[in-house]
Amino acid sequence: MALVVQKFGGTSCAGIARLKNVAQKVIKEKKAGHDVVVILSAMAGETDRLINLAYEAAENPDPLEYDALISTGEQVTVTLLSIILNSMGYPARSMLGFQVPILTDGVATKARIMSINVDRIKQELKKGKVVVIAGFQGVDRENNINTLGRGGSDTSAVAVAAALQADWCDIYTDVDGVYTTDPGICPQARRLKKISYDEMLEMARAGAKVLHPRSVELAKKYNVPVYVKSSFTDEGGTLVTKEDEEMEGEVVSGVTYDRDQAKITVVHVPDKPGIAARLFSALADKNIVVDMIIQNASIDNYTDLSFTISRKDVKVAAEVIKVVASDIGASSVQIDENVAKVSIIGVGMISQPGVASRMFTALAKEGINIMMISTSEIKISCVIQSKYTELAVMVLHEAFGLDKKN
Amino acid sequence: MALVVQKFGGTSCAGIARLKNVAQKVIKEKKAGHDVVVILSAMAGETDRLINLAYEAAENPDPLEYDALISTGEQVTVTLLSIILNSMGYPARSMLGFQVPILTDGVATKARIMSINVDRIKQELKKGKVVVIAGFQGVDRENNINTLGRGGSDTSAVAVAAALQADWCDIYTDVDGVYTTDPGICPQARRLKKISYDEMLEMARAGAKVLHPRSVELAKKYNVPVYVKSSFTDEGGTLVTKEDEEMEGEVVSGVTYDRDQAKITVVHVPDKPGIAARLFSALADKNIVVDMIIQNASIDNYTDLSFTISRKDVKVAAEVIKVVASDIGASSVQIDENVAKVSIIGVGMISQPGVASRMFTALAKEGINIMMISTSEIKISCVIQSKYTELAVMVLHEAFGLDKKN
Repeated sequence: MALVVQKFGGTSCAGIARLKNVAQKVIKEKKAGHDVVVILSAMAGETDRLINLAYEAAENPDPLEYDALISTGEQVTVTLLSIILNSMGYPARSMLGFQVPILTDGVATKARIMSINVDRIKQELKKGKVVVIAGFQGVDRENNINTLGRGGSDTSAVAVAAALQADWCDIYTDVDGVYTTDPGICPQARRLKKISYDEMLEMARAGAKVLHPRSVELAKKYNVPVYVKSSFTDEGGTLVTKEDEEMEGEVVSGVTYDRDQAKITVVHVPDKPGIAARLFSALADKNIVVDMIIQNASIDNYTDLSFTISRKDVKVAAEVIKVVASDIGASSVQIDENVAKVSIIGVGMISQPGVASRMFTALAKEGINIMMISTSEIKISCVIQSKYTELAVMVLHEAFGLDKKN
Repeated sequence: MALVVQKFGGTSCAGIARLKNVAQKVIKEKKAGHDVVVILSAMAGETDRLINLAYEAAENPDPLEYDALISTGEQVTVTLLSIILNSMGYPARSMLGFQVPILTDGVATKARIMSINVDRIKQELKKGKVVVIAGFQGVDRENNINTLGRGGSDTSAVAVAAALQADWCDIYTDVDGVYTTDPGICPQARRLKKISYDEMLEMARAGAKVLHPRSVELAKKYNVPVYVKSSFTDEGGTLVTKEDEEMEGEVVSGVTYDRDQAKITVVHVPDKPGIAARLFSALADKNIVVDMIIQNASIDNYTDLSFTISRKDVKVAAEVIKVVASDIGASSVQIDENVAKVSIIGVGMISQPGVASRMFTALAKEGINIMMISTSEIKISCVIQSKYTELAVMVLHEAFGLDKKN
């Protein structure tokens, strides 16, 4: 008998018929003799409906009230699933953030989980009940409702699994696992049976949408085995777990891409201490996250500085940077929104020489110019012209033989 | 400076525009220098939408889960109003049942309030905040969410006002006060400036819809002055308060009617001890509430027994009663669904002789036959044929001069 945590996303919870399908997944585990804790998102679209109401009520909704408002979405799905399970003869009890309780740090709209008291969950499990917990929410020390921000329900699920020392955590979503790359772009994409936490983390950060980086970090920290599965089929699935020998044998596990990229270059900057600090402090003040930064070698005490940001931030960033650029004596600011980032990811890279050159060669063969490069221990990212995104993904997928491995 | 509790019903909360109107009513009291605590219902229609979801999920939804589901309706309105008030420069904080906390007795779907801890409310008021409390909900000792059943938000409002020893409680609704009778039937109906708790209670029980009897009982018990007002106009209003000399000077304050009545007669019953007990225990077992009961004087040791119930219960009651009737040797069971109850209510009745005969005479003049009569200290009710309802209301309104008083 195992203790299993199952998490279902918004698409899986959209409507009574889909919640009845969720109930079947729960019952399957109960029939296998396991204890089951379920974490749910709100019905797809419901959180957006509530957010729209908040912004109809005020231009800048009070964050605590906003959180208490949008947290009702999960309250609806957990109670409905519990109603369904009870009516099917499987006793269930829903729990909201304050009922567990899941204690948060009090930062409205993007709270972090501080601790989870598992006593009441265990009490209900001992009675043979399925416990259905609202994802995305917790309460702070003053009993204010906080939400966890993007990817919050994944984070709730992994945190509850960690606190309960669950045997594993199933993340049910609308795809049947983690792929070597986006099957929508590359038909040769292959589902991975296993992937390491670090690779999953880099993939999530580099643009893969399947799991939120926060939940992967948490899974890694507490060593929770996470299965990514589809709500709509029993086939497939990918296990996210710690590295093993098998994984290390592979050089590259996946290719990701991110089109939400814009490149800004500050041209002909006097190469003096403090210049970069001034530029990036100005961006940080506007809450703009900078991804890659490249500074060319200095020629005659002048240099060029390039960085990438999310496209939605281009307008604000341009205004800020133009002011700073003129202050520091740069000659001009160039903005390129027609860029994308492609990345290769794999724990095997660490011990394998020549991975980078293989990547650059593959791209060069197709005439794809590399505008920026950044590397980590298990990832190499290149910024390229966005019109080459699909081509780059396909040639890299082939260059590292991702369609062939098993 | 006073402490004011304001309660707004579902029609007043239906949509952002109406909630902004509610905010104006709150701000008016704040500008007058008062502390304000607001109690809200869910948006009109929202509770029904959630109830439908529950019954779509299961034929007999688990009551605790059902309560946690439908309580989200009030969570949405209180957070939205708080967002609106904060954005208008009036700091506000919403509170749900568990946040106050409002402690209930654990009876799902029809809980009673056991106690209200006012510390946190007072704390927020001291900071100058408007406190916006979700009506209709509380939590039991295990932190399960309970709802208070029909009229729950009125009850929440009066209970909070009592616990806070508020100076008064405004109940905002879609009518501008309590009338001598239904203005929809009788154009001469006059708004009462004042009415006693007992009269209001009898009116509510006798069919007037404006306040739920539970909230009036509570207001009487804790002597909370309650103003019934309209959300949509600043005019009018009725004060519900304890009796005073002025009220006692009036014989009759109002005429009510209730069309949700059915009369059942068990004919030719042997007049033996225990017969009535058997009949009414059988109905109680089916949760059927009996309103009036009349037993005729016995002739030759046989009697007829009549009683009224709600029309929705007729089918179940008929089945139950037919079985019992044959057991106890009654000759037949007659069911009449074409009946209605008209009542006159007034604290002045106690000291005034001839009130009943004036009522019967007025009805008789119009040829309206009285089928059943029941009286309390401050109320006389008659069951009549339902087709005479409007006529009876009008002649009684005139007979007691209700259109003329002030």
